[in-house]
Amino acid sequence: MKKIEVRISGLGGQGVVLAGQILGRAAVYDGKNVVQTQSYGAEARGSIAKSEVIISDDKIGFPMVRKCDILITMNQEALDRHLKDVKEDGVLIVDSTYVKKIPETKAKIFKIPATEHVEKAFGDRIYANMLMLGALTKATSIVSEKTMKKAIQDAVAKNTANINEEAYQKGKESIQ
Amino acid sequence: MKKIEVRISGLGGQGVVLAGQILGRAAVYDGKNVVQTQSYGAEARGSIAKSEVIISDDKIGFPMVRKCDILITMNQEALDRHLKDVKEDGVLIVDSTYVKKIPETKAKIFKIPATEHVEKAFGDRIYANMLMLGALTKATSIVSEKTMKKAIQDAVAKNTANINEEAYQKGKESIQ
Repeated sequence: MKKIEVRISGLGGQGVVLAGQILGRAAVYDGKNVVQTQSYGAEARGSIAKSEVIISDDKIGFPMVRKCDILITMNQEALDRHLKDVKEDGVLIVDSTYVKKIPETKAKIFKIPATEHVEKAFGDRIYANMLMLGALTKATSIVSEKTMKKAIQDAVAKNTANINEEAYQKGKESIQ
Repeated sequence: MKKIEVRISGLGGQGVVLAGQILGRAAVYDGKNVVQTQSYGAEARGSIAKSEVIISDDKIGFPMVRKCDILITMNQEALDRHLKDVKEDGVLIVDSTYVKKIPETKAKIFKIPATEHVEKAFGDRIYANMLMLGALTKATSIVSEKTMKKAIQDAVAKNTANINEEAYQKGKESIQ
């Protein structure tokens, strides 16, 4: 792995910032260098939230994502805005509960009804971000399963750790 | 306020990433746009950790801190590395428990023995970052006290919220 640039986007409230923090932490546990950036505010409120993670074996000189190796989107508008930034050999993972229409792209596409899955399983849509992390881990192997689990445990409240990990597992199982 | 660029640096384990996240969150509660970036990994482990927060009334086009309006350092090596990036009319806040020698600078300097204070008051150095946030809030008013308190409450574990807020208060009192 030289350098992997990941962008996670969705609506405010879908947990894309937490997902980015967990991904970044897992990569650090894997011994990588990581820069993790989140944007909040007027742009985020009620609209698109964005979290970026750059993972590298080497020192990271330029800490902004320009072209994504991996784009995760949990919202149609977020997809429409960011799809142009995915590399031709990149990976696109969408929450198909909300992303219904994917314009033509050369990226490899994974469609996961994450929100629908977690609402059915846990009665709460807030775990959709963990399910997306499970799908990401299985589909791309950019971080190891062990460190991702540890990062989730370390980042979420103790009394929700089990549900978060179950949602993560469901995400892994959603990738064949 | 047009745009304020803040860098917080110290050793890994001093809580500079959490401090940056809390500052960013408080600014969002104040209605600002915020980009918050943290670097981890080989550069951070046992060495310098860095967290950057850009706060603006307007949309933030370029999400990297080049010149700091405010530099917070909790470690001598971090100061030596970053002092050159402080603007001439900038503000420098150091944890003088660890930063003993400040090269000549035109920035306004606040020296706070943060780690010493919190070790004496709470028997644990991990609250030094909250004390630095209190000093920052009082010295610069870049965020309101109300939103900073709320951001701390929202970011730390419930059973440590009181100590964290006490450390923050001590930081405010350390600025005359």
